[in-house]
Amino acid sequence: MYTLHIANKNYSSWSLRPWILFRELHIPFAEYSHPFNQDHGRQQSEFAVFSPTSCVPVLEDGGTTIWDSLAIVEYVAEEHPEVWPEDKKARAWARSACAEMHAGFSALRSECGMNCSLRVDLHSRSEALQAELARLDRLFCDGLSRFGGLFLAGSRFTAVDAFFAPVVFRVRTYDLELSELSSEYVQHMLELRGMRAWYEAALQETARLPMYEDKSRVGQIIQDYRN
Amino acid sequence: MYTLHIANKNYSSWSLRPWILFRELHIPFAEYSHPFNQDHGRQQSEFAVFSPTSCVPVLEDGGTTIWDSLAIVEYVAEEHPEVWPEDKKARAWARSACAEMHAGFSALRSECGMNCSLRVDLHSRSEALQAELARLDRLFCDGLSRFGGLFLAGSRFTAVDAFFAPVVFRVRTYDLELSELSSEYVQHMLELRGMRAWYEAALQETARLPMYEDKSRVGQIIQDYRN
Repeated sequence: MYTLHIANKNYSSWSLRPWILFRELHIPFAEYSHPFNQDHGRQQSEFAVFSPTSCVPVLEDGGTTIWDSLAIVEYVAEEHPEVWPEDKKARAWARSACAEMHAGFSALRSECGMNCSLRVDLHSRSEALQAELARLDRLFCDGLSRFGGLFLAGSRFTAVDAFFAPVVFRVRTYDLELSELSSEYVQHMLELRGMRAWYEAALQETARLPMYEDKSRVGQIIQDYRN
Repeated sequence: MYTLHIANKNYSSWSLRPWILFRELHIPFAEYSHPFNQDHGRQQSEFAVFSPTSCVPVLEDGGTTIWDSLAIVEYVAEEHPEVWPEDKKARAWARSACAEMHAGFSALRSECGMNCSLRVDLHSRSEALQAELARLDRLFCDGLSRFGGLFLAGSRFTAVDAFFAPVVFRVRTYDLELSELSSEYVQHMLELRGMRAWYEAALQETARLPMYEDKSRVGQIIQDYRN
């Protein structure tokens, strides 16, 4: 069975990708949670025990270690082809969108860091963030209209939905404006059983790391759904 | 036949990845070069004609557009399995290393931007750059010793070598220190027929874009091999 190493559910956007993929596709896996440490050096040492980059997520399968979320997806797809859309054109589109997310959207990442439990009123949207949101909206609308399903690349949940799952939480946390079609997709994603399970677990976490909690630079916290 | 859209060979590190992969594996392709424009807005419009993100590289195959270098690799691997190592463990390693490069090494990217024709004496190495170079060296040594070949994941050139080909040029341009084993790999890569062909073409280019030519922030230009 696969072993998946992840970090805090409230904060770790990269961890969510393979986790939600496995959950939604009913691929069995064991989950090991490694909380982030406020002391970066200590976290590096702690995570180095299972991760060659000291980053999460990491998948272990027998003696093989896969240390990146996109590599995990492709590794698992060899045994579980349902990870990608069956149609070749949809698969090419999904792979392009995943890889674009993997290397891009840096303003969205830095200005709207994932913190599932919060609702934040942004002071403003930088030009870079606005451009990325426009691109995100075009991408969502393209996939939803091109393949005509409830998911980005058709009627089934696939890896490309998993790759945008953290963005879905960010859209809710920061109340990011998208078109009606994209907003319906976001709502649909938030209602998935796996997404609700991740969110509920995130709300139960007691760790509060200032670097993920302090939103004063970008906006004002208007709600925190944790106890 | 595949159509590959790329930008300036002297500057475009992302373009080099699929180009060198196709060349070294003798996969036929037609090449379209779109020079970068100093006016960013104009470049965005020009590139939008063939690229949904206005970025390069883009692959066209019949009516299908694949707009990211890692997605291109996986798309082509479906028809050309030699793109990845044959051994499953080596393939998992290669995919992890490619995906790590795709999303990471941001200090290396920003402080040591690709400009094949230059030799630059860096003022200093930032802490972030030093950490990334140490990681790069560990990664190279891990692959070279684990799989025991002249290439990162064995005895054949595969996608993981293509993904680190731009780094190889950066190591030479900025005289970046690596261990003996990694340095031998860099030298071996620089001598490949495809790498030499890319470099020669880069030297012939006449475009000089200040954003890629001005190195005063990071170091001093000590040599320019263009005429």
